[in-house]
Amino acid sequence: MKIENPNPIQWRFSDRASQLQSSFIREILKITQRPEIISFAGGLPSPATFPVEQMKAAYDKVLSENGKMALQYGPTDGYAPLREWIADYLSTDSCKIVPEQVLMVSGSQQALDLIGKVLIDEGSRVLVETPSYLGALQAFSVYRPEFKSVETDDHGLVPSSIPAVAEGARLLYALPNFQNPTGRSLSVERRIELVETCARLGIPLIEDDPYGALSYKGEPYPKLLNMNPDGVIYMGSFSKVLTPGIRLGYVVAPLPLVRRLELAKQAADLHTAQITQMVVHEVVKDGFLQQHIPSIRTLYANQCQVMLDAMAEQFPKGVQWTRPEGGMFIWVTLPKHIDAMKLLDQAIAAKVAFVPGAPFYANDPETNTLRLSFVTVPPERIREGIAILGKLIAAQM
Amino acid sequence: MKIENPNPIQWRFSDRASQLQSSFIREILKITQRPEIISFAGGLPSPATFPVEQMKAAYDKVLSENGKMALQYGPTDGYAPLREWIADYLSTDSCKIVPEQVLMVSGSQQALDLIGKVLIDEGSRVLVETPSYLGALQAFSVYRPEFKSVETDDHGLVPSSIPAVAEGARLLYALPNFQNPTGRSLSVERRIELVETCARLGIPLIEDDPYGALSYKGEPYPKLLNMNPDGVIYMGSFSKVLTPGIRLGYVVAPLPLVRRLELAKQAADLHTAQITQMVVHEVVKDGFLQQHIPSIRTLYANQCQVMLDAMAEQFPKGVQWTRPEGGMFIWVTLPKHIDAMKLLDQAIAAKVAFVPGAPFYANDPETNTLRLSFVTVPPERIREGIAILGKLIAAQM
Repeated sequence: MKIENPNPIQWRFSDRASQLQSSFIREILKITQRPEIISFAGGLPSPATFPVEQMKAAYDKVLSENGKMALQYGPTDGYAPLREWIADYLSTDSCKIVPEQVLMVSGSQQALDLIGKVLIDEGSRVLVETPSYLGALQAFSVYRPEFKSVETDDHGLVPSSIPAVAEGARLLYALPNFQNPTGRSLSVERRIELVETCARLGIPLIEDDPYGALSYKGEPYPKLLNMNPDGVIYMGSFSKVLTPGIRLGYVVAPLPLVRRLELAKQAADLHTAQITQMVVHEVVKDGFLQQHIPSIRTLYANQCQVMLDAMAEQFPKGVQWTRPEGGMFIWVTLPKHIDAMKLLDQAIAAKVAFVPGAPFYANDPETNTLRLSFVTVPPERIREGIAILGKLIAAQM
Repeated sequence: MKIENPNPIQWRFSDRASQLQSSFIREILKITQRPEIISFAGGLPSPATFPVEQMKAAYDKVLSENGKMALQYGPTDGYAPLREWIADYLSTDSCKIVPEQVLMVSGSQQALDLIGKVLIDEGSRVLVETPSYLGALQAFSVYRPEFKSVETDDHGLVPSSIPAVAEGARLLYALPNFQNPTGRSLSVERRIELVETCARLGIPLIEDDPYGALSYKGEPYPKLLNMNPDGVIYMGSFSKVLTPGIRLGYVVAPLPLVRRLELAKQAADLHTAQITQMVVHEVVKDGFLQQHIPSIRTLYANQCQVMLDAMAEQFPKGVQWTRPEGGMFIWVTLPKHIDAMKLLDQAIAAKVAFVPGAPFYANDPETNTLRLSFVTVPPERIREGIAILGKLIAAQM
């Protein structure tokens, strides 16, 4: 029952939609999912760390004991027992977090979208690290801010450089632990300075913390949240410590903001799957993460060391890289004249992939940088891939 | 390690955030979740219809056979086999839908948000029915459109009234089957006229169809999508035919638009949970819905009839209501002088709840209307609640 000769629609997209670009990483991922490619490109956690049996048992238990509740609509702010668990997990002796501050979201990426929606007007100034997480730049871009890059050195974000760009800033977005893409972490001194600076200037400070628990030494850094719970918006996720495919994260924010974020979430997708939250609560409530996370740390610390050793052996002089103490990424700086984007073409032809660094810069990209992930590929293939990459770089020196 | 005497943040929200209001329905739901309340307010599907055993078996199978894939990040457009199944499910002899047109989303509400994001600029004209679905008004409002109401009569949206408000319209949003909130459905003639009118005027037509399969007679109406796949954006959901708590829906749109929606989704939450999509595919792939949906229809048709009979018996003369042939809702029009919002206060005091009609109007609310849901409460309680409501209304005549 088709209608005859309809006019073709002349699509008129919103101005906002013109900002939409596919993440370069996800585009590369499509290429690099071919099994013959040694991919250092993805930020995919190692599937070897997924607690499949525990998840299966939890789905079975939740559906057996509480199936109708798990499959029904739920509250926008999230499943209360999980919010309580998270508040408790993030509380310290001197800083108690309450469940009302916790909003469950469909992965941290959704937290970025909701924060952008609620805090950014067109042209609003947004402060980011140099370089910063691509997914955050992408999420915020939709709301058309003016990005200002905050200076960074080998030790990460430089707090003393904030006042120069602070005027009118709606937020500062930072990833203090094992940053994506650089793998750098902020020292305790810099954390204090960062939190104090933002508090003094009245700038909401976003602490994105997907990797904080993945410290290879096992000792996590203090959270910015706990230094100033009234000025910090904390983003956490189960993606890197449990599994990413369930899409479950959370935001912890001061009450006036968290209520706005909740309203934005209600309009965006009503709520995050009830069953997912109940299952995760079932898995984590009795301390599973405390046993599980060390096994992830050990695996990643080993693969990180394998990659660092291989780089020391195979990369020519003049190439520099970070030495992460946790997380999933190493950041490489090539001599200035080498364009990582062109290197990627050659690398893919030689069956190795990585992510060029340029897309991680909000302003003035450094085209001689790249990001390597060491978590998805096993040690033997890491050595093989780094050797190939070393030869390609050497050929350009 | 808290910092000393931080300034309290003076929150500066985006202009957009000032549009955010909690859905009146979700506020009422908080009150009416108390078990002593007979609630006709919620749009909650009856938990009696949830296929808990089938879901449990599917989670077990997916995690046993494909656990690591189910728990890993997945593609933004969705799980390919499920997209294929949906394309096939929506295809007719004269209109083939291809999987590339299908984007999986975290419930239909997300489709509304993404459509708003991609098609609506501040001040853009958006056409909606009178009354329209509250959740759509809420999702679109974030992008600050100018809503224009399209005229509606006892048979639903009046297509001939569109040209008068069409100028510059970015989209027309319609719910042709068992509409929320009125329960009305468009006749085949009106569907053709609606699709032809929008095609002639070049207006993208959104067909929101959560209830289409819930036709009590078992014969679904033809979809607008199949009448003009190049001009219609179709929204479907597993919430009403399987379970809502998993948050799984889909949009089917012409390719130029679906690619934009995919980019918007990537920035909004990367992708919808991989495990959820694999489980739903496992449940539906061999025809489960064809056996399952008739049992939902029978249950709802019976409860609908119970409510209609009780209304005929208990409601005073001068009250009018719709007689739905499917879906979940009856729409009541009281005499002009009765304010449904005030009636709700009395009703809650008497332990009965419903949703006043006013919030469903984009412009010029009719305050003497209300929506009753007959799906969540069993027959005996429906009779009891309608009797109480009838007395309260009679007292105001």
